[in-house]
Amino acid sequence: MAFFKITNKDSKTQARAGLLKTGRGTIETPVFMPVGTKATVKATTVDQLYEMGYKIILGNLYHLYLQPGIEVLEEAGGLHEFMNWDHSILTDSGGFQVFSLSRIRKVLEEGVQFRSIIDGSSHLFTPENVIRMQHRIGSDIAMVLDECIPFTNDPKYTKEAAERTLRWAEMSIRARKKIGTSRMRLFGIVQGGFIKNIRKFAAESVSGMDFDGIAVGGLSVGEDREKTMEILDYTMGFIDRDKPAYFMGLGDPVGILDSVSLGVDMFDCVMPTRISRTGSAFTSSGKINIKNKKYTRDFTPLDRECGCYSCRNYTRSYIKHLYKTKEILSAILLSVHNLYFIADLLEKARVSINEGRFYGFRKEFKQKYNELNNKI
Amino acid sequence: MAFFKITNKDSKTQARAGLLKTGRGTIETPVFMPVGTKATVKATTVDQLYEMGYKIILGNLYHLYLQPGIEVLEEAGGLHEFMNWDHSILTDSGGFQVFSLSRIRKVLEEGVQFRSIIDGSSHLFTPENVIRMQHRIGSDIAMVLDECIPFTNDPKYTKEAAERTLRWAEMSIRARKKIGTSRMRLFGIVQGGFIKNIRKFAAESVSGMDFDGIAVGGLSVGEDREKTMEILDYTMGFIDRDKPAYFMGLGDPVGILDSVSLGVDMFDCVMPTRISRTGSAFTSSGKINIKNKKYTRDFTPLDRECGCYSCRNYTRSYIKHLYKTKEILSAILLSVHNLYFIADLLEKARVSINEGRFYGFRKEFKQKYNELNNKI
Repeated sequence: MAFFKITNKDSKTQARAGLLKTGRGTIETPVFMPVGTKATVKATTVDQLYEMGYKIILGNLYHLYLQPGIEVLEEAGGLHEFMNWDHSILTDSGGFQVFSLSRIRKVLEEGVQFRSIIDGSSHLFTPENVIRMQHRIGSDIAMVLDECIPFTNDPKYTKEAAERTLRWAEMSIRARKKIGTSRMRLFGIVQGGFIKNIRKFAAESVSGMDFDGIAVGGLSVGEDREKTMEILDYTMGFIDRDKPAYFMGLGDPVGILDSVSLGVDMFDCVMPTRISRTGSAFTSSGKINIKNKKYTRDFTPLDRECGCYSCRNYTRSYIKHLYKTKEILSAILLSVHNLYFIADLLEKARVSINEGRFYGFRKEFKQKYNELNNKI
Repeated sequence: MAFFKITNKDSKTQARAGLLKTGRGTIETPVFMPVGTKATVKATTVDQLYEMGYKIILGNLYHLYLQPGIEVLEEAGGLHEFMNWDHSILTDSGGFQVFSLSRIRKVLEEGVQFRSIIDGSSHLFTPENVIRMQHRIGSDIAMVLDECIPFTNDPKYTKEAAERTLRWAEMSIRARKKIGTSRMRLFGIVQGGFIKNIRKFAAESVSGMDFDGIAVGGLSVGEDREKTMEILDYTMGFIDRDKPAYFMGLGDPVGILDSVSLGVDMFDCVMPTRISRTGSAFTSSGKINIKNKKYTRDFTPLDRECGCYSCRNYTRSYIKHLYKTKEILSAILLSVHNLYFIADLLEKARVSINEGRFYGFRKEFKQKYNELNNKI
C-alpha cells in the first residue's frame, strides 16, 4: 500500500487530487488540517470535526511537550487516545514554535535550546529527540526539526539556517531508522527564505532524501502574498512531485486555491479557528466580521450558501449577540462555520480537479470571494 | 388539558412526581431548568441539552431586555427562534437581577428604576411591562416582578418588600388578562425573607391569586443551608399544593433532593454551568475540582458512574490539561457533564418517587455524595 497516490491531475494547472494512507485511514488530498495545538482544535468537539468530514488534524509538539508533557500523553495511550481523536494526526516538530514563541533560544549544531513560555525552564530540542517524542505520542506523520527564520533578505543568515535544516534532516532520517518498524511517516521541510537559489538547493536536497513527504516552510511569515506565491511557485519546481507537498501555515481560502493550483496537497493554519474568536467568518462572497452593527437585525445565516451546523441553525443577528455578550457559544458557532467552510472548499477543489474543471472553479470562487473587498 | 398534573405522591415525604404541559410540550417534574441568561446556556449547544433530556430552560428578561433588546427578539420570531431552542422556556421577570446586579436602583410603587450594567442608561421595570415583554418574546412561563431583598433580619424592610411584591402580583395578573388569549402561563412569587409570619402571609396571599404556579423567592441568598430549608419547609406549608412549586435559584444536588422531599417541583440555578468554568465537577461521591494536581495522570472519567458525553469519551487527565491550558473545550466538557449530572439526578428522583422509594434513594445519594467532604 503506497502512502501517497495521485489519482487525478488537472490539465490547466499543477493541481492534483490524491490519497494519503496512514495507519489510521485514507485522506483525500488536497486537504486542510485544522490545528489542534494543545490536544484540542479550539472551541470544537471531535464530533463536530468528524461531522465536517475532517480525517486529519495537526498537533504541536512544542506545546504538548510543555503541557501536559510527553510522559502523560504516553501513559494516556498516545495523543489520539488522550484527546479522543480517531483519525490521523500530523505533528509539527516544534521548530516553528521555538523560533516564533520562545524569545530566549540558542541555535546549536545539535539542536536548539529554548526557555519554556510557561515557566521559563530550559529545554533542548534536537532532530533526534523531536522524532522520538513524536513517535512516543503516536503521531501518524512526523515533521523534522527545522530552523524557521523570520522574513529577511539576509542571504548569509538564510543560507546558514537552510543548510542547518538540511543537516538536521539527515539526522532526523537516521533517528527514524533507529526507531525501527513504525507506521509513523516522516516529512522533510524545505527552508531557504526568500532567496531563490537557496530555495532551489534546499528543495532539491530534501527531494533527494528518504522522506515520505515534503513541506515548504518559512513562507507566510509576514511577507506580501505575491512574494509568497512567487517563492512557492519557484520552490515547487524543484521538489519531488511524486511525494505529497505540504504548505505549512496557510489557511485563507484564496491562498489555498492558489497553492493547490501550484501542486500543493496539504495545508494547516490556525487562521480559521483564530478569526472565529475575534468574530470573523468566511463567506462565499468574502470575509465578514460579525461585530458590525448592520448584523444586529440580520436574520440570515452567516453564509446563505453554507451547509454547516451554524448556518443551518443560527442567524447573524444571534451570533452577533453572542459575540457582543462574550458568550462561549459564539466561538463555537464561528469555529464550526469557518472550519466547515474550509473543509467544503477543499472538497469542492478535489471534485473539480477530478472532473477536470479546477481552473474554472478557482476563478469563479475568487471572483465571488473578492466581491466584498472590492465593494469596500 | 390541565397545565399541571400530579401523577404520584411519595408516602414518606412531601415529594411528588407530575407533568407540566406548556404550549411547547410536556415536562416531567420534579425538573431542573438550566439557565440560559443571555439566550444561551453557557458553553453548550442546544443539541447537547436535547441529548441530556432537557425540555425546559430559563431565560433572564433583565439581560435579554438590555441585549439584544426586546425588539430584536420579537423580529427574530421570539426567543425560541432566536436561540434555536424548540422546547419550553421560563423567563425570569428581571426582579432578582435588578436587585442583585444594578447598584443604582430606586424602588417606586409603580415599579423599579435601574441603571443598565452595560451602559449606565436609565430604565423602568413595572409589573405590567415585564409581563408584556415576556409575552412579546414568546415565553412559555412568565414570572411576576418581585422585590428580592438580600439576607436580612429587618422585619420592617422585609414586610414592605413582601407587601409591595403582593401588590405587584395583583397588577401582574391584570396585565396578563389584558394581553388576552395566550398560551403564556404566569407564576407568582412568595417573598418574605426569613421572617416566618411574613412568609406565611405572602404564601397564603399568592396562593389565593390566579396564578398557574407558585415560586418561592428570596432564599439561597447567602444564608446557611439549614436556614434555607427551615424557611422553605415552613413556607411550603402555606402554599397551594395543587399548583407547581418552584424554588428559584437552587442547583446543588443535595439541596435539590432535600427540596424535592418538601414538595418542590421546579428548580433553576446558574451553579452547574458556573462551576464548570472554574473547573468543578459533580460526581456521585461529591464535588471535585479538576485543577487538583492528583488528576494529572488520572485516566478515569470525571465520574465512573456517569453516562454523559464527557464521561463516555474523556479522562480527568485530559480535562485537567484543557482547564490548565485555558481551552474552551474544558468549559464545554465540564458544562455538559454537570448539566447531565443534574438532569440524571432529577430523572432518578422522578423514577424513585414513581416507584415509591424516594426516601431511600435520597438517603443513599446523600450518604455517598458526602463521602468526599467527610474524608477531607
